[in-house]
Amino acid sequence: MRLLGADDVREKLGSKLVPERSKSMAEVSKSMAEVSMCSPGRRPREVGLLGGGIIGGGWAARFLLNGVDVRLYDPAPGAVERMQETLSSARRAYRRLTQVPLPAEGALTVVTSVADAVEGVDLVQESASERLELKQRLLVAASQAAAPETLICSSTSGFRPSLLQAGVDHPERLLVAHPFNPVYLLPLVELCGGRSTTPEVLGRAAEIYRTVGMHPLVVRKEVDGFVANRMQEALWREALWLVHDDVATVEEVDDAVRYSFGLRRAVVGPFRMGGGGAAMRMFLEKWRPELTSPWTKLTDAPQYTDAFIDKLAEQTDARAEKLTAAELEENRDNALVAVLRGLRSEGYGAGETLARWEKGLLDRIPQLTDGSGPLRIATVEIPADWIDIHGHVNQGRYLELCGMGTRSLFSWIGMDAVYRSRYGSYYTRETHLSHLRELYAGERVQVLTQVLGADDKCLHIFHVLTCEGEERPAATGEQMLIHVDAASRHSGPVQGKVRERVLKLARLHADLPRPRRAGASIGLH
Amino acid sequence: MRLLGADDVREKLGSKLVPERSKSMAEVSKSMAEVSMCSPGRRPREVGLLGGGIIGGGWAARFLLNGVDVRLYDPAPGAVERMQETLSSARRAYRRLTQVPLPAEGALTVVTSVADAVEGVDLVQESASERLELKQRLLVAASQAAAPETLICSSTSGFRPSLLQAGVDHPERLLVAHPFNPVYLLPLVELCGGRSTTPEVLGRAAEIYRTVGMHPLVVRKEVDGFVANRMQEALWREALWLVHDDVATVEEVDDAVRYSFGLRRAVVGPFRMGGGGAAMRMFLEKWRPELTSPWTKLTDAPQYTDAFIDKLAEQTDARAEKLTAAELEENRDNALVAVLRGLRSEGYGAGETLARWEKGLLDRIPQLTDGSGPLRIATVEIPADWIDIHGHVNQGRYLELCGMGTRSLFSWIGMDAVYRSRYGSYYTRETHLSHLRELYAGERVQVLTQVLGADDKCLHIFHVLTCEGEERPAATGEQMLIHVDAASRHSGPVQGKVRERVLKLARLHADLPRPRRAGASIGLH
Repeated sequence: MRLLGADDVREKLGSKLVPERSKSMAEVSKSMAEVSMCSPGRRPREVGLLGGGIIGGGWAARFLLNGVDVRLYDPAPGAVERMQETLSSARRAYRRLTQVPLPAEGALTVVTSVADAVEGVDLVQESASERLELKQRLLVAASQAAAPETLICSSTSGFRPSLLQAGVDHPERLLVAHPFNPVYLLPLVELCGGRSTTPEVLGRAAEIYRTVGMHPLVVRKEVDGFVANRMQEALWREALWLVHDDVATVEEVDDAVRYSFGLRRAVVGPFRMGGGGAAMRMFLEKWRPELTSPWTKLTDAPQYTDAFIDKLAEQTDARAEKLTAAELEENRDNALVAVLRGLRSEGYGAGETLARWEKGLLDRIPQLTDGSGPLRIATVEIPADWIDIHGHVNQGRYLELCGMGTRSLFSWIGMDAVYRSRYGSYYTRETHLSHLRELYAGERVQVLTQVLGADDKCLHIFHVLTCEGEERPAATGEQMLIHVDAASRHSGPVQGKVRERVLKLARLHADLPRPRRAGASIGLH
Repeated sequence: MRLLGADDVREKLGSKLVPERSKSMAEVSKSMAEVSMCSPGRRPREVGLLGGGIIGGGWAARFLLNGVDVRLYDPAPGAVERMQETLSSARRAYRRLTQVPLPAEGALTVVTSVADAVEGVDLVQESASERLELKQRLLVAASQAAAPETLICSSTSGFRPSLLQAGVDHPERLLVAHPFNPVYLLPLVELCGGRSTTPEVLGRAAEIYRTVGMHPLVVRKEVDGFVANRMQEALWREALWLVHDDVATVEEVDDAVRYSFGLRRAVVGPFRMGGGGAAMRMFLEKWRPELTSPWTKLTDAPQYTDAFIDKLAEQTDARAEKLTAAELEENRDNALVAVLRGLRSEGYGAGETLARWEKGLLDRIPQLTDGSGPLRIATVEIPADWIDIHGHVNQGRYLELCGMGTRSLFSWIGMDAVYRSRYGSYYTRETHLSHLRELYAGERVQVLTQVLGADDKCLHIFHVLTCEGEERPAATGEQMLIHVDAASRHSGPVQGKVRERVLKLARLHADLPRPRRAGASIGLH
């Protein structure tokens, strides 16, 4: 059992140390190796957003939480307040999404003109309503005020970029960058260039979106609706027919999707099957009859009659579960986070994107304090998925919290990739946890880590977990770590500069009060 | 911090004790309360399967792993071997899917005639190829040999049940029960009755599928393709057009789905939005232009020309990730399990179905041994999602393993729902873990739990975790539990019959050798 510091993770992700017995981890390692071959990518300093609705607010949240400054232009009444609500939702979601420390939030500047929004920024993102004339007007204004090299991207769901390039200054830097709601959680961004867009511009845009945790996909041809929305629309149209013809209610259609192929679609796309082209040929042959004599209502879309709209609205009101839009969004975000975390554990699909983003964040962790007091990590919010089937924070999660303290310690003593490959690292040998009060989802916990003693091989540490605003600890964790030599794989002395830092920290902490529970054994009194 | 036994979980799931601060847990509780109002449902004793291909093999796995005996008829060469492979995949998936002990596997009987397959079974499941005449012949033969009340279900992806009722004896008990691949993981089963099917039969079938962890959905009208496949087909057709027209490759289409709306579809269906009918009306209005002037290729399906089939096969062969069908299936299953576990933590969608199934399994845990040796739980396989970002089994998972030992102890001392509501229960106060060797994904671990001492309030226990086939422990866990009074919520004496059982177990275990590491404290030597 080994605890790693940020540098160790960096090393690990690019190495072959992943246990060979775990196929899925080997998968993770493979994708990580691919990623680490890419250049790390420069995060933009500032972006300009035109429009702050559902999509624009989602962009604002993704950029701000990734440490990018945002200039927002949206003249609609209440737009800034709604954007702040989206930002709150995104903050909550990110606290559950990752325990890797996020960068300091970017600064939000609300401006009153397009020119103000685009001045000096690296990228402009237009997310106005889907009205061609409105978008054209905003994009032209942006192109006139922005520097010639500033990227100008439209979030349009369907308009071809060539339509949007009409009248734009330097149209070669304009492209469609179409995201998916919630923008701060779903990783796909479809990049589609118009007649004037240069490949270099598409590459630059892809690099920027990657730095904020997204998966850019370049669309090969200009078509209305790009790739994903065309498939979504086909599905949506058939869903409407099913309700129209009383085959199922809106609730039943939803259940049919999310209990069946919806689960698969988070994991594998429609074409994904093993066995290569031969398997594809067999599959096509198998389903030939259904394609030539289709089940779907091919030839028409259902008419939006008043009666049909009433039916959809009434069935929606009749659902068993009544939720406001905000409640549904919160539940949806929680579930999406749980799905993303699950996929990350397998290194699959969107889980790869998440792992890559976390790796990027780890590369940017700032250096820590002087060691005169206990080491302190960023406050951790208890995620909902730490609650087990019994309704409690699983005991093991207390250890995860202690592990975060250990990682900050490793960072402080400079146990980095070079040290680890040359000399070795610390393994946890023993842990003594004391539970003093229960923790609940949503509570915010501070972890303080103190060195009780250190010698050639051993490092004796103590973690205190306290809920924000409380004095009495919620739990304590005492641990003995042993230094293991990289070559012999047996215990051996800590060396070089890390040894100096460990002993220095032990000396600095020697004057701190010794925790009351340190050194205790378990037994009946 | 509280550890619960199986009975406690039963109580908990139907109670209001779920912490109010955790919205998503309140959700779980709500859905659980609904479920517990249903009758628990009788698991079938034996089912007869006609056809053991991908779907039939998946049915076999789901039934066998839920403790149901299976009679299988499939005359195709190699059918039984392929079914055994599917069963192996399902066993692996279930070990990762839940840590709740599964019932003893059902017995598999391979038979050589339809009549043999259906004799004496509760339900017949036909999963032959999608050829109407073949299905009709099998179903008629089954109906003639089966008892008149035996349910006869077809797994057909598209044929209307009335077509399948032609010539069938007692056609009122025939229905379509259409599952999704992999049948042992995806919970949806669409139930569709024909002209002769009675509602009572649909209800009986739904109850049986629920007992094996599925979500039955009754289709309101007989239509080709039922509900989910019609939507899948619409999406598939549009995906084919995108490749046909060179907008994207098969790999890009897959990525477009799984990085965007595919993630949403595991969580919310196409109609799911908060805010009721009013929100639905707004949504319909917003997307009116796209529906009336569609992005999709409405009017036709792409022709299966040789050139188009070649293109699909070649793009499939050109994918970056080369996987055999078996490798892809294993990765897919691992990722699906991770998604299902994630959704369960939020009580959302298919996660509700999983939680309900686990509750049913908990209701059926058999009673344990005489207490003359350490308590022993079923061997646990280390799931891949226990491996953290650093490539190790997270330290907290060791505590989960200890928790399983504690639960078996609670079961032994009879700490049930009645006791807990009347008197109270044990809370974990302290834990001392010692890590003696690393654990890897796929390793099988035994947990032995021993009582070191017990008095009025305290229970001192010791867990030894050993990898299968090894003598030396991989880890040990020492814990002190304290009895907390139900009324006062403070520590108080254990009472009644549970007190007798605790003290009896302590006496029985007093003669066992005391573990070497018991009572140790942590410190530099």
